[in-house]
Amino acid sequence: MRPPATRMPIVTLLTDFGMSDGYVGAMKGVLLRQAPGITLVDLSHTVRAFDVQAAAYLLASCAQEFPVGTIHVAVVDPGVGSARRILIAESQGQRFVVPDNGLLDMVRLRVPIQRWIHVTRWPKTRGRVSSTFHGRDIFAPLAAVLATGTPAHHFGAVVRHVPFQLRLQPPRMIGASLQGVILHIDHFGSLVTSIDAQRLRRFAQGRPIHVRVGRHLVRRFVRTYADATPGTVVALIGSHDWLELAVVEGHAARRLHARRGDAVIITRGSQR
Amino acid sequence: MRPPATRMPIVTLLTDFGMSDGYVGAMKGVLLRQAPGITLVDLSHTVRAFDVQAAAYLLASCAQEFPVGTIHVAVVDPGVGSARRILIAESQGQRFVVPDNGLLDMVRLRVPIQRWIHVTRWPKTRGRVSSTFHGRDIFAPLAAVLATGTPAHHFGAVVRHVPFQLRLQPPRMIGASLQGVILHIDHFGSLVTSIDAQRLRRFAQGRPIHVRVGRHLVRRFVRTYADATPGTVVALIGSHDWLELAVVEGHAARRLHARRGDAVIITRGSQR
Amino acid sequence: MRPPATRMPIVTLLTDFGMSDGYVGAMKGVLLRQAPGITLVDLSHTVRAFDVQAAAYLLASCAQEFPVGTIHVAVVDPGVGSARRILIAESQGQRFVVPDNGLLDMVRLRVPIQRWIHVTRWPKTRGRVSSTFHGRDIFAPLAAVLATGTPAHHFGAVVRHVPFQLRLQPPRMIGASLQGVILHIDHFGSLVTSIDAQRLRRFAQGRPIHVRVGRHLVRRFVRTYADATPGTVVALIGSHDWLELAVVEGHAARRLHARRGDAVIITRGSQR
Repeated sequence: MRPPATRMPIVTLLTDFGMSDGYVGAMKGVLLRQAPGITLVDLSHTVRAFDVQAAAYLLASCAQEFPVGTIHVAVVDPGVGSARRILIAESQGQRFVVPDNGLLDMVRLRVPIQRWIHVTRWPKTRGRVSSTFHGRDIFAPLAAVLATGTPAHHFGAVVRHVPFQLRLQPPRMIGASLQGVILHIDHFGSLVTSIDAQRLRRFAQGRPIHVRVGRHLVRRFVRTYADATPGTVVALIGSHDWLELAVVEGHAARRLHARRGDAVIITRGSQR
Repeated sequence: MRPPATRMPIVTLLTDFGMSDGYVGAMKGVLLRQAPGITLVDLSHTVRAFDVQAAAYLLASCAQEFPVGTIHVAVVDPGVGSARRILIAESQGQRFVVPDNGLLDMVRLRVPIQRWIHVTRWPKTRGRVSSTFHGRDIFAPLAAVLATGTPAHHFGAVVRHVPFQLRLQPPRMIGASLQGVILHIDHFGSLVTSIDAQRLRRFAQGRPIHVRVGRHLVRRFVRTYADATPGTVVALIGSHDWLELAVVEGHAARRLHARRGDAVIITRGSQR
Repeated sequence: MRPPATRMPIVTLLTDFGMSDGYVGAMKGVLLRQAPGITLVDLSHTVRAFDVQAAAYLLASCAQEFPVGTIHVAVVDPGVGSARRILIAESQGQRFVVPDNGLLDMVRLRVPIQRWIHVTRWPKTRGRVSSTFHGRDIFAPLAAVLATGTPAHHFGAVVRHVPFQLRLQPPRMIGASLQGVILHIDHFGSLVTSIDAQRLRRFAQGRPIHVRVGRHLVRRFVRTYADATPGTVVALIGSHDWLELAVVEGHAARRLHARRGDAVIITRGSQR
């Protein structure tokens, strides 16, 4: 009796390499050559160059949707070639192969990392390891051998402490206001804040809330975009459970002149 | 004797989500988790935000190339969270999962839809259904269970009449001229008009035709771009059998200052 | 005894079609309908329109990473519909399906092409062959039947001589200087030159080198970006073994006002 064919895992790719060069293609080639049968999934290759925080947000907002066994390779890596470490993180049956620069900081806010491995050896799949393209020469080969069954601890020792690096300030009370920041501006121009739904509920205590961003005060709180007419500025709880500011069928970042990192101040209105 | 392994279907994705957020990744994760073995195909994620007509055109210009069994998921959905319906359309062995906003209007001009299902139940694959991201919470789970064999009528009742919504005016005669509109401007700047080859032939009756767009008159009718020198403005029958205006190795929309929706007026020249 | 299931090959796609139309989707549909089970890989669809040289560079920088058996389909084809030939090239177990316009010129600088076939017949998989979209009507069907096992010589005769077309000038000595050109500007703004590592070493003879681009003189030679502080202009050997000019965490093309084709002049400094 033959054992059932086991399915090869999914490998996702997230880079800031753009799609006008062969960088992404080279990584895909290495992966498919070393681990035939894997399913490659592009998360994005158009993260802004060197924007670790944007990539960290993107990863946290979709990684957990993938099945157990998935290997996520994220290469936004301004420190390529430097002494920055390369890490494999194991979390709930998934693995992440990343440079040690904060790329997993937002994933860690959502799910526990069970184990970190500091990679000090890698598969000898290409002749020479370049000092400028570790995506092709280290990250892709690592993911490929993980996909074919080699355990992560083959490539280095477990490390106990991996510090957060992005300095994502948690929301805090300033007098009677709750203050957070704009964590991310999405493709539609909506502003995702660092204030999660649970914290907001605790703060509001059933009273209406007002949200200040720069000189703009947003008073309209809705359940979904369609609850207001096009052009209205609204606050709502977004799909990742964070407070979000949006312009219905419009672009909130341009309308409110807002940028990532800007302060967001929540105040309570009078009892309804 | 074992039955032959059946291949899991293809699922295509078409959204206006862009690739700078985790929205597309989240949908892919849900699909691959719920329906292991499907083949995911990106049709596009860079349709202009909320541009239902552009997405409808894109879908109509490629859906029929895919094999029987393919499931097309198209989420350009300004009405997310509103009372707009979610539909499954069955057409020639393919299925389409879409919001009811006209996304299939151009597909319907080309192929018959055999059956429409108004979705009122969906798979319980994620805990809570958000009110802003139905792509992840409703459309992807629906496509996944369709892919694994559940028939569409499990999710709602058959509806008899689904109105067209995009108000695509058919070409019409105005005096001795045939008038249509610019339906689409493609990546190369070529102008795809609403006048199809058959109608044009009937109108021309063997005589040369002239095409007016704004203040520009195009007299040069060619079989293919290479029939004229670079920079020439030409009319031709494009690959989808529509009359098209192009600038050889150039950008017709910029050259002719044309926009989608602009009138296109065809007149007959004198007998050759 | 059944033969082991053979895996269907990988088919890569490289076009300048963009992702706002159905062109890429149509090619994918044709491929998956005609050759079920292939693995489709997007190399890029956002090469600048008609930019054969950029596509040739992209292809050369990743094709060889893919496994034996891979079929590369590259359609950057300003001459579509003209008398330009369609070619299948066989190289080290891979095949390339391309218009005859220089798309393989850079691949040929790196690996030998064992055989060229001039395509004069193609599979009858779609009713009519359009004169403007050979990607869907000729290239994709060709790749599909190659993927399912039909040998390339079924589609035309072997040709002996395929001339280079891109006029990539090799570097040359001008007096005591070595002169090359900027071959490519990558997504990060780095300038890839036509001067390879080996030639540079022979020229330098152990002495420091200076690189002039326009009015800028680059004296800092590093092993990797991280060897200099952000903002520094550096020269280095890039991941494809070409001399490269970069700005650490910055954009060299904007900083040095450089364009593809610009001269790059190398001089030797005094002995260290």
